[in-house]
Amino acid sequence: MANFAIMGFGTVGSGVASVLRMNGDAIAERLGEPLSLKYILDVRDLSATEYAGIAVKDFSVLENDPELDVVVESIGGAKVALEFTRRALMAGKHVVTSNKELVASHGRELLAIAKEKNVNYLFEASVGGGIPVLRPLFQCLAGNQIEEIVGILNGTTNYILTRMIRGGVPFDEALKEAQAKGYAEQNPAADVEGLDASRKICILSDLAWGREVLPERISVQGISGLNLRDVETASKAGYQVKLLGRAVKLEDGRHCAYVAPHLVREDCPVAGVDGVFNAIMIRGNAVGDVMFYGRGAGDLPTASAVMGDVIDALQHREKRRNLGWGEGGDLADTGELSMCWYLRGGFAVPQGCREIGGGAVLTGPLSTKGAKALAKKLGAETILPVLP
Amino acid sequence: MANFAIMGFGTVGSGVASVLRMNGDAIAERLGEPLSLKYILDVRDLSATEYAGIAVKDFSVLENDPELDVVVESIGGAKVALEFTRRALMAGKHVVTSNKELVASHGRELLAIAKEKNVNYLFEASVGGGIPVLRPLFQCLAGNQIEEIVGILNGTTNYILTRMIRGGVPFDEALKEAQAKGYAEQNPAADVEGLDASRKICILSDLAWGREVLPERISVQGISGLNLRDVETASKAGYQVKLLGRAVKLEDGRHCAYVAPHLVREDCPVAGVDGVFNAIMIRGNAVGDVMFYGRGAGDLPTASAVMGDVIDALQHREKRRNLGWGEGGDLADTGELSMCWYLRGGFAVPQGCREIGGGAVLTGPLSTKGAKALAKKLGAETILPVLP
Repeated sequence: MANFAIMGFGTVGSGVASVLRMNGDAIAERLGEPLSLKYILDVRDLSATEYAGIAVKDFSVLENDPELDVVVESIGGAKVALEFTRRALMAGKHVVTSNKELVASHGRELLAIAKEKNVNYLFEASVGGGIPVLRPLFQCLAGNQIEEIVGILNGTTNYILTRMIRGGVPFDEALKEAQAKGYAEQNPAADVEGLDASRKICILSDLAWGREVLPERISVQGISGLNLRDVETASKAGYQVKLLGRAVKLEDGRHCAYVAPHLVREDCPVAGVDGVFNAIMIRGNAVGDVMFYGRGAGDLPTASAVMGDVIDALQHREKRRNLGWGEGGDLADTGELSMCWYLRGGFAVPQGCREIGGGAVLTGPLSTKGAKALAKKLGAETILPVLP
Repeated sequence: MANFAIMGFGTVGSGVASVLRMNGDAIAERLGEPLSLKYILDVRDLSATEYAGIAVKDFSVLENDPELDVVVESIGGAKVALEFTRRALMAGKHVVTSNKELVASHGRELLAIAKEKNVNYLFEASVGGGIPVLRPLFQCLAGNQIEEIVGILNGTTNYILTRMIRGGVPFDEALKEAQAKGYAEQNPAADVEGLDASRKICILSDLAWGREVLPERISVQGISGLNLRDVETASKAGYQVKLLGRAVKLEDGRHCAYVAPHLVREDCPVAGVDGVFNAIMIRGNAVGDVMFYGRGAGDLPTASAVMGDVIDALQHREKRRNLGWGEGGDLADTGELSMCWYLRGGFAVPQGCREIGGGAVLTGPLSTKGAKALAKKLGAETILPVLP
């Protein structure tokens, strides 16, 4: 018998309980032993629910139970979640989480504690919801040197952009729709301004190159500044506007990560990823491009990834997964990246650009700094990178 | 120091050696120890190559070396490869392979030997080339009950179909092009008649449901019977013709697997997968649909998957991966599957069908048997399932 607990019984936590109810027999068969949900830790009163018998409010109950193998942390944020994760790992429990904020900000410390205590700290659900992407990256692609990662990492903004592109719906209205459908929070800033995507591209970058990249150190641009003219102009020229997290290894070995809306050519597989779906493309020096696609959020998809990690932790009870990253290295500035750019505005199209709709696309690459200077000189209203 | 050997120094075997040369330092860092290629076993004379010092012709050298940890089997076929794999596992070596024929036909036996000897038999490269798909299926999605798997599993036929669809090139000519580009063998039957895809869908099915499905037991239809009118008619009606391997769990718990050309709606992500690329879509009862996309063949992509498995085997030296499947269960007959169908021919479109180009698509599902009977009655020239 293997025992686990859920801390934080919101969308993800209750999803994990549902997956156990749906698939408990199949999971037991895979594990070779039954998996039992022993505790649910939550500040809410669960006494009127079917979980009354296992609801607890005191974390030390989990901490001090020698029969508890795995703790699922679905509290969110980086305060209580950080404290309880630290303590659970110190107490020799494996911890599984969907908490991207915590992993992006404190993953290095928590993985170091896990290493010291010979337990697992796993977080497949923190990037791409239910889509398997972190384990494929650090395990299946372990024979590669990773050259680039680019992804639609936030379903809310992708839904909004899809409505703008396919439905001609203005940003504000598309955001309201997303809120009505439950895809966007009442305070949508973390999604719309790119913060959620920045946490995810940092975690991918940490794993790809073994060096911590903190979200507050990278350039992040969201989609609130986009208007219908941008997506329409791009569309007419054969591009889709997508909010991408992107991490690139430069020729000198340094890497950089950033989040920005990009123009994506319509023949690129990422361009066809619509609505709340996520897609992550990874380029390795042996495998070339591989892409992972699916639902990037939602209770059951996210719980699927959490449960996969719980099973993995239990199958590695005695042996920790070799997972972790070191202190931040010399991160390249996004300004050093050379890309093609899209500039919108009523200026005369200069040399080295081709006209598209009410703007221009550079025909050759230019550094971010150079592109910004050019945009200023021309008086362009919008400037967006074009995904190479 | 970890030691491995390569058996069979063809496309995949030499690709593995290349990946070690390209990425040896990064692999050593991941492993925590250097990885050394100790032997290459091949019937060819390698004395004039850089591998002269490690070339051997006698398998027992590998078998009897107590310092050899992992053997890569890239011989192909199911004769010598079967014997050497059995003996390597019996000798306590981990074995990694890209050999789909061997895994599909003898995987159950070989995994049982691996279990007995507490070593790993890993075969990520046998399906989808470099695309991580088997490990995501059996590990990341372990919390799911798998409902369906559908994939473009053969790059050669997808290249041919893409040329037929996008270029209007007839089948024979597209095949010749594929051969000229090195995508198709001189004897292309295994690809074109669906045999290669059938091995891969069987391996996916084995892993998804834990029961052996042998390629010779499933219905397999290739693309040699398709002509330009089929793909053109489908295209005009908003469908792409794709050769798919498909495995489905029925409501009564049985499952079935088959290979056939399908009509795929253009808004389905699989429809946009062109050329030699592969894509595999997996539906789990928690995660929904996830898709994996990339190059399904080629020396370096396949070697990437092999190397990922070599690293995994070395990280699990003491503990075998919990991998395997039992004897074949009660496999459902494809004839029991209800689907919509496309029928081509100059018949009067019957009730329950809508006309498309020179044929008709059923508006509701019908069993394979029923559809075949209808096709016969109408005198239809072609009958193809429509992917639901």
